[in-house]
Amino acid sequence: MTERPDLLVIADAADPELDALESRALLRRLHPASQGLAAALAEADAVVVWNCVVPGFEAAFTEALAATGGLPRLRWVHTTSAGPDRLVFEALVTHPAVLTCSRGVLDVDVAEYVVACVLALLKDVPATVRLQGASRWRHRRTRSLAGTRGLVVGAGSIGTATGRLLHALGVAVDGVVREPREAAEPFGALHAPAELASIVGEYDVVVVTAPLTVATEGLVSAEVIAAMKASAVFVNVGRGHVVDEAALLAAVKRGRLSGVALDVFTVEPLPADSPWWSEPRAIVSPHLAGDSEDFLQRLQALLLEQLARFAAGEELLHVVDGQRGYATS
Amino acid sequence: MTERPDLLVIADAADPELDALESRALLRRLHPASQGLAAALAEADAVVVWNCVVPGFEAAFTEALAATGGLPRLRWVHTTSAGPDRLVFEALVTHPAVLTCSRGVLDVDVAEYVVACVLALLKDVPATVRLQGASRWRHRRTRSLAGTRGLVVGAGSIGTATGRLLHALGVAVDGVVREPREAAEPFGALHAPAELASIVGEYDVVVVTAPLTVATEGLVSAEVIAAMKASAVFVNVGRGHVVDEAALLAAVKRGRLSGVALDVFTVEPLPADSPWWSEPRAIVSPHLAGDSEDFLQRLQALLLEQLARFAAGEELLHVVDGQRGYATS
Repeated sequence: MTERPDLLVIADAADPELDALESRALLRRLHPASQGLAAALAEADAVVVWNCVVPGFEAAFTEALAATGGLPRLRWVHTTSAGPDRLVFEALVTHPAVLTCSRGVLDVDVAEYVVACVLALLKDVPATVRLQGASRWRHRRTRSLAGTRGLVVGAGSIGTATGRLLHALGVAVDGVVREPREAAEPFGALHAPAELASIVGEYDVVVVTAPLTVATEGLVSAEVIAAMKASAVFVNVGRGHVVDEAALLAAVKRGRLSGVALDVFTVEPLPADSPWWSEPRAIVSPHLAGDSEDFLQRLQALLLEQLARFAAGEELLHVVDGQRGYATS
Repeated sequence: MTERPDLLVIADAADPELDALESRALLRRLHPASQGLAAALAEADAVVVWNCVVPGFEAAFTEALAATGGLPRLRWVHTTSAGPDRLVFEALVTHPAVLTCSRGVLDVDVAEYVVACVLALLKDVPATVRLQGASRWRHRRTRSLAGTRGLVVGAGSIGTATGRLLHALGVAVDGVVREPREAAEPFGALHAPAELASIVGEYDVVVVTAPLTVATEGLVSAEVIAAMKASAVFVNVGRGHVVDEAALLAAVKRGRLSGVALDVFTVEPLPADSPWWSEPRAIVSPHLAGDSEDFLQRLQALLLEQLARFAAGEELLHVVDGQRGYATS
């Protein structure tokens, strides 16, 4: 095993948290928009996509595969996202290199962000901020969270952390999960994705934490949205493509949902002419749910552990199952 | 005992939840601005101040006392507020009538509102709402709640409910309370008000839930504010006069606190020219923390119970201790 592997780090900022990785790898840093990506991939033992989106990754990977006869040096690719969807493409999934993701690193922060959004919607915080901007004191009645029923669509690592916080605040929480398992705290019941349309109408709070996979794309369909309670609040911190965004917007505009909070969209950044920006029943945030101030420290710790395992030839953490499209542990 | 007492209800709206009280009392309804308040007090066995502020109450009470030789019929005054401060004046406290308040009715909703505000500040929700209004996608890092330390100033009924929710979200919570008692969950430690300035600097989240009494007026002084962490968030859902509002504003403007959420003010409604409206680090809300949609149902239930006890000559719930200025049970 290589003691200090050639590690290609694709990063759009010179975060100081990257420096510590030098102790365990020979770092080559590249900007995600760099033209030299294919050539750099050819010379790397391992690749870390550090907290950024790399639109040209699949093309560069394919180009490097052809140029090197299969990227023979490459043994590991890591994404600092919790959801590895942007790296789950055929050429990489079928390559012998192990793909790992940052499962767990964002759990509590995303869960806290979901609670922040749910309470902001129930307690009418966006209207408070807008009224404050107009120097207007206008009393309103708000809504209670305790005693409601919540559904977490995607009861994995982030979804379970989210369910735990909602449960702690007095919400009776159920989950939707692909792999059937016995329901355990915080979940009272776990349902299969196919049941979603028939059960979603029972819930006051519906949260999407699911990763984007072939199985979850469009899972929250127009039919599912139409079956939700008109008083429900809906939060998406998973991926935009899990939800039929047009159907959701139409439902919100017709008052078929009391409020939504969207941190992810089918197109990011959300285009300036998107109707979501001006929708008063929506909280629109720029994919920041898990990005707390100490997020990079936690990424650093995970990568130091991964590099130690890589050097020792041990199994890496959070290996992505290419067929499922996410890491199961 | 009177079976159906003459009950004066001072209310500014014809809430249907009041109708059920007719079964246990002869209701006379009066608007808080009515000129006939003193005369109506003279003819009442009991008075309920229903979910409104009655600026002329003390003057009318004093006038009625003089006119009737001590309001001999009056045996009970109830406020639908949790904090009875507006009715704790000498003439009423020394009158034989029992003063009761609505302790407990707002606990969970105020606690949820505090959590909504704390998370909104940590997760930068007000900036998200303002950026949304400008159609701007701007990623920021936000802050975590789990693992922080919280201090609840006023560890009574609302304060304990608030401490419970913060504790459930991973905050190590201590309290400040007037009557010394052994600390028990959710509080790790309970401090005396006199210790506030020396301990407040240890906390990331400081919440005021204290009632306004002679002992709490100005408790969160300029000295206490100056001792807070610059990274702390501060929430006041107690009463405006508990806090040195000018010192707080100066601290926020100098960046000596990262964010504040104020639901109560020394003057309410907050005047249109108040500098708080335009303070980006503040969330300004119109005294709505406890006012959930089902608040009036809970008030109704409490008053039906009180009327049953009143008719039976039993002890009323939530009797205000005139010396302390709040109800201890």
